[in-house]
Amino acid sequence: MPTNSVQVVLIAVISLDGRIARPGQSGAGFASAADQIWFRRSLLEFDCSVMGRRTFGTIREQVIGRADTKRLRVVMTRDVATHGQDAMPGALEFSSDEPGSILGDLARRGRKKCALLGGGEVYRLFVQAGLVDALWLTLEPVVIGAGTPLIDGATPETHFRLAETRHLSKDTLLLNYTGHGATPAPLPPA
Amino acid sequence: MPTNSVQVVLIAVISLDGRIARPGQSGAGFASAADQIWFRRSLLEFDCSVMGRRTFGTIREQVIGRADTKRLRVVMTRDVATHGQDAMPGALEFSSDEPGSILGDLARRGRKKCALLGGGEVYRLFVQAGLVDALWLTLEPVVIGAGTPLIDGATPETHFRLAETRHLSKDTLLLNYTGHGATPAPLPPA
Repeated sequence: MPTNSVQVVLIAVISLDGRIARPGQSGAGFASAADQIWFRRSLLEFDCSVMGRRTFGTIREQVIGRADTKRLRVVMTRDVATHGQDAMPGALEFSSDEPGSILGDLARRGRKKCALLGGGEVYRLFVQAGLVDALWLTLEPVVIGAGTPLIDGATPETHFRLAETRHLSKDTLLLNYTGHGATPAPLPPA
Repeated sequence: MPTNSVQVVLIAVISLDGRIARPGQSGAGFASAADQIWFRRSLLEFDCSVMGRRTFGTIREQVIGRADTKRLRVVMTRDVATHGQDAMPGALEFSSDEPGSILGDLARRGRKKCALLGGGEVYRLFVQAGLVDALWLTLEPVVIGAGTPLIDGATPETHFRLAETRHLSKDTLLLNYTGHGATPAPLPPA
């Protein structure tokens, strides 16, 4: 896995059967309260983040309400023009570029650590490009049986090393995996 | 979840993205050596097991070579007649019955503990019927991106409680979940 000057951490909450959303839904409606607290805490570690258009759509109001230049949010979309009125340069931007180009641009602008926030197609694009340095996966104790899979579409088989395990609650695990050849991304203190 | 007189433990090895087989394959070709040792060990805990026709197809020779009445193996298939020459009553049987009927029959014959061995459609049928008492999931540190999901098809959302976690190796976790209202199925000693 190539080392990027921007470290990329894929953050996701998954069901036991590897789903990130219920059938017909966007957003992890099955995430526990413990995961929601952890997720908000985890974002403080990052100076930039990338998400897909559908993920943005489900949290648009929160994103716009909280957008600031401490964490530059990039939304991947094929149709940048549509989102012109939401754009806030340096805080909330839209891009139709490939993952490598987006990270290159973030690096040139001095960003160091990027949270990859999904959905399944965005996760796939970054894994496929070999650009994921770490996975912070919350594993919820539920079987969903359908819905969006963590990796939406074919990708080369990609191996990771287990770096840390933590209980977010009695039944919810947080797992930290490191890409081969990548710099570990230690979890922030509980 | 209803209590069965036969306790059902779903045993599976999954990728980080919830797959049980590589695209176009049957059988967990990505399972680590540590998981393969664990899997063989785990089966000693059971006096019966259930698997689907495709899963049976991938391990037919081993199953036939090792079949004995200590563990009654039941293969679910729509076409029982096709498998007539492989059948060994009390050791290897074929059934087109529903999960509840299969378990009822096993209970009447004095069987107590059933390993559910997949694949994804068989797992789904048992989860759907509310007949899974525990999950013993091996989580391999790999993203596969496509292939058979753990639960193949729609099923009602089903919650479990995390009972135990264990390292099978530095990077491979074994997780034991208990169904709500079900009797726990403790892992055998390491």
